[in-house]
Amino acid sequence: MDEFALIAHFFAPLAAAEAGAFGLTDDAAVLALGSDQALVATIDTLVEGVHFRAEDPPESVGVKLLAVNLSDLAAMAAQPRGYLLSLALPQAWTTDRREAWLGGFVAGLRAAQAQAGVDLVGGDTIGTPGPLTLTVTALGTVAHGQAVRRAGAQVGDDVYVSGSIGDATLGLMLLQGRLAGASATDATLLIERYQRPTPRLGVGHGLRGLAHAAADVSDGLIADLGHICQASGVCATIESQRIPLSAPASTALRREPDVFMDLLRGGDDYELVFTAAPERAGDVARLAAATGVPLTAIGKIAGTHITQGAHSVRVTDPSGRDLVVVGSGGYCHFT
Amino acid sequence: MDEFALIAHFFAPLAAAEAGAFGLTDDAAVLALGSDQALVATIDTLVEGVHFRAEDPPESVGVKLLAVNLSDLAAMAAQPRGYLLSLALPQAWTTDRREAWLGGFVAGLRAAQAQAGVDLVGGDTIGTPGPLTLTVTALGTVAHGQAVRRAGAQVGDDVYVSGSIGDATLGLMLLQGRLAGASATDATLLIERYQRPTPRLGVGHGLRGLAHAAADVSDGLIADLGHICQASGVCATIESQRIPLSAPASTALRREPDVFMDLLRGGDDYELVFTAAPERAGDVARLAAATGVPLTAIGKIAGTHITQGAHSVRVTDPSGRDLVVVGSGGYCHFT
Repeated sequence: MDEFALIAHFFAPLAAAEAGAFGLTDDAAVLALGSDQALVATIDTLVEGVHFRAEDPPESVGVKLLAVNLSDLAAMAAQPRGYLLSLALPQAWTTDRREAWLGGFVAGLRAAQAQAGVDLVGGDTIGTPGPLTLTVTALGTVAHGQAVRRAGAQVGDDVYVSGSIGDATLGLMLLQGRLAGASATDATLLIERYQRPTPRLGVGHGLRGLAHAAADVSDGLIADLGHICQASGVCATIESQRIPLSAPASTALRREPDVFMDLLRGGDDYELVFTAAPERAGDVARLAAATGVPLTAIGKIAGTHITQGAHSVRVTDPSGRDLVVVGSGGYCHFT
Repeated sequence: MDEFALIAHFFAPLAAAEAGAFGLTDDAAVLALGSDQALVATIDTLVEGVHFRAEDPPESVGVKLLAVNLSDLAAMAAQPRGYLLSLALPQAWTTDRREAWLGGFVAGLRAAQAQAGVDLVGGDTIGTPGPLTLTVTALGTVAHGQAVRRAGAQVGDDVYVSGSIGDATLGLMLLQGRLAGASATDATLLIERYQRPTPRLGVGHGLRGLAHAAADVSDGLIADLGHICQASGVCATIESQRIPLSAPASTALRREPDVFMDLLRGGDDYELVFTAAPERAGDVARLAAATGVPLTAIGKIAGTHITQGAHSVRVTDPSGRDLVVVGSGGYCHFT
């Protein structure tokens, strides 16, 4: 199959439900947005050997590629509207290998786009002398003025995370042979969380008018909360014992307690971290109930900065002692 | 510089004029569109060694990367609104090489975005074990129902191209040592057309309500006119002697007439090919005068198809004999 046949066979079906994709045969997609809606747009690239493993199932690569992009929309409280896909396929692949890989990859995209209610609207397919390189631009909408940003966290806010933290890091450690002793069931669940993350679109959309600030957990809980603190000019204190862990993660930590620090710093969970005023705790609980996703308060926005651009996240242990303190310099004025 | 410092130093200045880019510090961009405007979106990837040469000036790579994407917006009659950039930088590069390359690349982007009146709104920066790989998503707007598509060409339409055809192919042949005898001035002009194409945004925007169908010349004149024919269910006849050539291209063809066939098939000109009703010839001439870009009638939409999906482009020589006939099967009903 040449490029046009590949697109018609593998990708046009993913675009069939979106009239503005023109069956992927035009120069660009044309999408109507609601008149009160702003466009929300983000781009992310995954490279084989860097962001996923060559031996990962191609179907899981499709799921993850879309999830990491939709997760950015969720963090802005946006709803997905469509996505563009650029595929750089290794020139060294045989035709059989390429078509087998694409079959699995497209099945993963199909599952992920059905779950998110979104269609492929455009793309580019090329050959590369390098590794498989996959780029998605996710397009979404949010009512004007309703996007939730990283800036906006206020002193006194509660800090929340969705779902559970650290599963993806443990899943990767299992795949890399750096973690032993997990049951087959636990290992499956943790690896699933690494390979097939779920973007928290329902939670994200519910953050409109509720959260003061939000980010997705892609760089790691401490790093991404740090981004919120830096953008908002505040500092946060997190109580380590309140960080929600899945049952498989709790079991793993009982065997290897030191791994906890890796979970704080590991990325790839694609949960949301956000802040909200304490008096909105009931609304947060209702959002958790409505979406079926746990939303757990793990600490507070504890103070403001004197030095612009500085940020600080402090994680305490159960006795109140510092477990981690991070910052980029500057004095943090804890209240 | 780490990823965040790179973004702040090189890329945040390219996003400074767009409030919705949030200084490239948020999870996604948020852009307001006019309430009567549809979103137009396209994605294209360039790989070193495939789409540009490793020895091309980094500034020219920045110009070309943006141009190839904006050209797709022009072909839909859209106006650019912003762009997202994903950079996969070789891990093997030294820090010095990376920063020197980025300095030139960003200068090229800055020049191209100033010319097009568009800003960077978001991006992703990663390392790759493979070659430099650059992806842009261009975002534009067009009034609802005013996008010009590949489908829509009608029997009897005139076929036009903007600017001149084949310069980029000759420029690449010069760089590859496959074309000799050009003067230094001619060589500079032809290479410039290959390395620094100009997206025809003004012409494209003027095609609203004027052109029946349009595409940009990225795969080659015959191929891209073929895409219009296939999408429209028509066939076209082009008179080779009417295809507009620049003075340097005409000079080169006098020395090497056989190269003409390469110019018909070569891509990278990023001109527009479009069709319009014969009674609109005066409007086309006025658009050419208003934009300063020559718009030349080169042939006709000559007939319709019986077999769906077939297409045919026929190029005749000055005596009316067939020079090229292409098609994907099926009987073309010439009128």
